[in-house]
Amino acid sequence: MGTTPTIRDVARRAGVAPSTVSRTLTGTSYVAPATEERIRRAAAELGYSQGVRRARRPQSVAALARFPSAWFFAEAIAGVERVLRAGGYQVVLHNVGDPAARAALPDERWGLAGLIVVASSFTAAERAELERLEVPVAVVGGDWPGRPRVGIDDRAGAATAVRHLIALGHREIGLLSFDPDDTAGQGVTDARRAGYEAALAEAGLEARPEWVVATGHDAPAGARAVERLLSGPRLPTALFAMSDEMALGALRTLRRAGVDVPGRMSVVGFDDQAVAEYADLTTIAQPAREQGERAAALLLAALAGDAAIPSVDLSTRLVVRGTTGPPHRP
Amino acid sequence: MGTTPTIRDVARRAGVAPSTVSRTLTGTSYVAPATEERIRRAAAELGYSQGVRRARRPQSVAALARFPSAWFFAEAIAGVERVLRAGGYQVVLHNVGDPAARAALPDERWGLAGLIVVASSFTAAERAELERLEVPVAVVGGDWPGRPRVGIDDRAGAATAVRHLIALGHREIGLLSFDPDDTAGQGVTDARRAGYEAALAEAGLEARPEWVVATGHDAPAGARAVERLLSGPRLPTALFAMSDEMALGALRTLRRAGVDVPGRMSVVGFDDQAVAEYADLTTIAQPAREQGERAAALLLAALAGDAAIPSVDLSTRLVVRGTTGPPHRP
Repeated sequence: MGTTPTIRDVARRAGVAPSTVSRTLTGTSYVAPATEERIRRAAAELGYSQGVRRARRPQSVAALARFPSAWFFAEAIAGVERVLRAGGYQVVLHNVGDPAARAALPDERWGLAGLIVVASSFTAAERAELERLEVPVAVVGGDWPGRPRVGIDDRAGAATAVRHLIALGHREIGLLSFDPDDTAGQGVTDARRAGYEAALAEAGLEARPEWVVATGHDAPAGARAVERLLSGPRLPTALFAMSDEMALGALRTLRRAGVDVPGRMSVVGFDDQAVAEYADLTTIAQPAREQGERAAALLLAALAGDAAIPSVDLSTRLVVRGTTGPPHRP
Repeated sequence: MGTTPTIRDVARRAGVAPSTVSRTLTGTSYVAPATEERIRRAAAELGYSQGVRRARRPQSVAALARFPSAWFFAEAIAGVERVLRAGGYQVVLHNVGDPAARAALPDERWGLAGLIVVASSFTAAERAELERLEVPVAVVGGDWPGRPRVGIDDRAGAATAVRHLIALGHREIGLLSFDPDDTAGQGVTDARRAGYEAALAEAGLEARPEWVVATGHDAPAGARAVERLLSGPRLPTALFAMSDEMALGALRTLRRAGVDVPGRMSVVGFDDQAVAEYADLTTIAQPAREQGERAAALLLAALAGDAAIPSVDLSTRLVVRGTTGPPHRP
């Protein structure tokens, strides 16, 4: 040896072109992880250091996010960004709640190191398209069979909400549901509905179709759902809404219609957004920012080469406030 | 000529290495704009097209964002993302509300095409650091002298809120303020306070220091501010809060303390988040998503070479709901 190794020496030892060595060691473009590993090992073995000292461009991870509510989106994305940034990655935001973004999913040109999926479900064809990137994937509050996921047990959370109403004496419990035909959020919608039905079934109650209203996910949807119930032949005595925003919309319509809460109607939401406390809303709390942080941590583990990353379910909990009480006795 | 030009011909004409031509035309890594321009011109003049047909990696823009509220952050970022994505750019999210992110601002290695600043103010030193990137900058709801900005007239919005209270007959009007020492949001805080003081001055009223309470920006801060006022010698008859979240926190504390709204105390917020409607809160509406979209459009214009991009102020408007009324007459 004796002489200083050159980039050509490293390239020869790693079995790649010199330009690939350069691109890898300066981080100016994406190189397959196995190739990068081989080049770094060759550089280390030869004591080649010139290029290595140049700092690298951070690699990027795409956050494929949907916007189920401003609150969930902001909290989960902030959690994802904080942990990935601390791990040395850039977060590229791609809002797949927009059909145009969904029609243009990331491809090889993006040079991504990984994907993180926020509150979104994908079709098998879409997943196959993304699988072709051959990068680690972690999921927050959505589902992707076989990929590590951080979420909550939506079924258990919904069942807890309905059991709270049953324990107060309610037998006539309606559901304000997300739109079950919205495929992007389907896993969550199905699980919360299953929890609602399971809690009713435990108590020997049935879900009456006329009390299950699926109108959307936001406050206007909650308001519309209650308008529909008010125009029906008979109101239930309690409502479980799949989101705090739907619950807030429901509360407004009930207030305007002169239906006392909780005297005549109890209402439970889901999320425990900051505003739920100020609306005195009984709800199921889920930790949105922590879900983002934990999913980003799973992705970092996968990027570091961990092969078997377990999924994580974080706890939900019932927060009892002023919108639930015993049923009205006529 | 006659023969088909090769990548070496393009490299020779542009005065760069063949690998640089390849990297540029395939978009696989960052190349200085002037070099890229020279290479593209050489390729066009020679009729070289092979590499050009390969699609490029999208260029990226960093969104330097702060999190003044989940609502503003989510809406503005969604607006920024939609427009930049449609324009062919990736959005890299960098949450400068986190001190660690603020200490590690983007540098040349990021290979950015532009910057978009969301709800954040920077020190002169920070701006100088970012100016070294020599890329276009657009600003949403913050300030950066000399750069195009989309925002609202915070001073006018605040003055409108206070004039509404004065028109109802109020003479004793308190202010629930953001923290004026929080440099990241200083421009907004100063402007809203100036609007509050200007509207009082027009009516021959003075801002009484004991009625100006600066506690933060969120609902708990609003609650704390009202607790402080309640422990003082004398309550004003109306409050202007710099955000809906502060107003909601204030309303909860007033409700718990048995202070009737608007009978004994009127409250005006600022933002018109979705939840304001459901809390029946009188407020100043600002279009958060549109601000993000418009700022992204300004950045696209700058990226396309437009030299003089004018700043844009979008309108705010007073939305009167149930939390304001005439003052209590003892």
